[in-house]
Amino acid sequence: MPKYYDYAASTPVSLEVLDSMAAWQNKSYANPSAVHLEGESAKDAIRKSREIVADKIGAMPSEIIFTSGASESNNLAIKGVAFKHLENKGHIITSSIEHKCVLNTCAFLETLGFQVTYLEPTNEGLIEPGAVRDVIRSNTILITIHHVNNELGTIQPIDQYGSIAFEHDILFHTDAAQSFCKLDIDVDDMDIDMLSLSGHKIYGPKGVGALYVRDARDSGLVPLIHGGGQELGLRGGTSPTPLIVGLGVAVSSFPSQSDIDHSDFQTTISDYKHSRNGGEKTVTTIWNVTFSDDQELNRFKDDNDWLVSQGSACNAMSNVPSHVLSAIGLSGDEARRTYRISLPPYKQQ
Amino acid sequence: MPKYYDYAASTPVSLEVLDSMAAWQNKSYANPSAVHLEGESAKDAIRKSREIVADKIGAMPSEIIFTSGASESNNLAIKGVAFKHLENKGHIITSSIEHKCVLNTCAFLETLGFQVTYLEPTNEGLIEPGAVRDVIRSNTILITIHHVNNELGTIQPIDQYGSIAFEHDILFHTDAAQSFCKLDIDVDDMDIDMLSLSGHKIYGPKGVGALYVRDARDSGLVPLIHGGGQELGLRGGTSPTPLIVGLGVAVSSFPSQSDIDHSDFQTTISDYKHSRNGGEKTVTTIWNVTFSDDQELNRFKDDNDWLVSQGSACNAMSNVPSHVLSAIGLSGDEARRTYRISLPPYKQQ
Ligand SMILES: Cc1ncc(COP(=O)(O)O)c(C=O)c1O
Ligand SMILES: Cc1ncc(COP(=O)(O)O)c(C=O)c1O
Repeated sequence: MPKYYDYAASTPVSLEVLDSMAAWQNKSYANPSAVHLEGESAKDAIRKSREIVADKIGAMPSEIIFTSGASESNNLAIKGVAFKHLENKGHIITSSIEHKCVLNTCAFLETLGFQVTYLEPTNEGLIEPGAVRDVIRSNTILITIHHVNNELGTIQPIDQYGSIAFEHDILFHTDAAQSFCKLDIDVDDMDIDMLSLSGHKIYGPKGVGALYVRDARDSGLVPLIHGGGQELGLRGGTSPTPLIVGLGVAVSSFPSQSDIDHSDFQTTISDYKHSRNGGEKTVTTIWNVTFSDDQELNRFKDDNDWLVSQGSACNAMSNVPSHVLSAIGLSGDEARRTYRISLPPYKQQ
Repeated sequence: MPKYYDYAASTPVSLEVLDSMAAWQNKSYANPSAVHLEGESAKDAIRKSREIVADKIGAMPSEIIFTSGASESNNLAIKGVAFKHLENKGHIITSSIEHKCVLNTCAFLETLGFQVTYLEPTNEGLIEPGAVRDVIRSNTILITIHHVNNELGTIQPIDQYGSIAFEHDILFHTDAAQSFCKLDIDVDDMDIDMLSLSGHKIYGPKGVGALYVRDARDSGLVPLIHGGGQELGLRGGTSPTPLIVGLGVAVSSFPSQSDIDHSDFQTTISDYKHSRNGGEKTVTTIWNVTFSDDQELNRFKDDNDWLVSQGSACNAMSNVPSHVLSAIGLSGDEARRTYRISLPPYKQQ
């Protein structure tokens, strides 16, 4: 049996989450917008989830917009701000090692006349706060930099970006798909105006996520999916009760202290000559590893039947080295000898 | 026990669909973009669903883009075409009785400088093909008219809109959320260029749908959710394997001939003086009923503990009469005496 070490790409749905979803699939299945009894009960369940998610990041329930995942959340955040400035356009600061959904959104906005600065990371995968400050312009409308890099595991100093943005009265958005529940986040302490999260990275369902939006109701954010007034009018579509309930339970059942022991993995990996990329400050669950040469790489592959990624899942199908590995200065050859090994965030039954 | 007669708002998930989803939740849960074994098996399952959905409407699998639901599909179709014409803008033809997600999308595009014609229905809820032809302009870029009206059940002559659009070399999109699987659809015979559908109207999961796009790869459609290359680059986000598999099984298990007998309902409703709105050509499952006076209305409500809608679910929370009922000429008082009663499309265990 191959060993699944691709948890940063996607996790299983936990039994607790599955159980919580069941009744909403075929017992109480009304449209949560319906005003009758069954609609109200779905609405209540969604309200509870909203509270749980908000609570986890120090936000208000009215600031949580449920979406189909972090990709949609990122698109909503970035385009939602940009479209407020469609007339005069404006400048956006991001990094060259964001997830493709952020980079492609920014590239699209460039075609509309927006200016985008893509900050390069250090060789350790760090986006330096000073570099952010240096490129601020008078027409900068948004800083969007991720929290934990999905390929390297590097933890970015988002509180520092937040305070720089706050000082300059610029909105700050962070893609927290890889950090939500895994690292402490407080949107007020960290001066975060918008934050994207996803269910399927934390033993929740695929196809659901959320965007935190500070003072959502008054944010003026332009919806990505116009609809029938759901989610404060910021996101149309029938609210998927089972998915939203599942997301809530994924959050509430995520342990505050990880109970997992990764020493087996560490013993194994230390048998092969390698260097770990991503610098000093990385999450414990993502290991970006460059094997020292082909012999070590092949020995590793022969010995271990592991399901891991080269680059991220999204880049997986292309043969070019990942944009993240190139950005931290790896050669094509080094990138070829590099794997992202991502471990379970906590122990499942 | 109240009787659920709100199937047009949402259906339960069938046992067959639930069963089909189970293994993809916590047994084979890899990201379908991953290149390893488990990723490939998820990708295969998605491929099968794509074939099933395509087959149902006479399309090619490569023309099916999975989304989070019909609201997203409608937004993708309409904005996706509009954004190709952002420079010179253009004219869009729709009707005043579309779902709010279409109307609000069009209203948004008007703020960007697009022109929109909202055709009024007859008192029977019909959008006349001749009226469509009459308002075509040299810069009309899109005709978007729904197939079955979600409040009235009226079946619109989409094949005629399709041939008018084809004649004039204009794209034709239809919102088939209420008709998909319930009425025969062939995108070629009907000259449909784009078609929106949803899972949770056909015993499938909430949070998944699809957009059919003719020659998707060469369509030049501008993505709504930019991402990591999923869905031909037209829709970003980790593909939610369980939801997509569930949608496929909802389609394949939908009977070609409905086995359901609605005579109980018909006997009951005939006890109360009412008129049925929506004209001659309506689906059998949607009954839009105006009770003749308050006495009949109250007698109906007292006798029957039914979960039904006033207007559609999305309008449910507002006290203004639905835009659809106003458009077919009902007074506020008549609208107040009107219910949408929607019956199960086929028999569930
Ligand atoms: C950093 C980051 N952002 C965004 C995403 C996209 O999330 P989702 O699959 O929920 O759209 C992912 C994972 O795929 C990610 O790792
Ligand atoms: C005609 C019509 N269009 C669009 C929708 C929206 O579908 P979804 O809930 O899948 O976004 C609905 C139902 O809510 C509908 O009846």
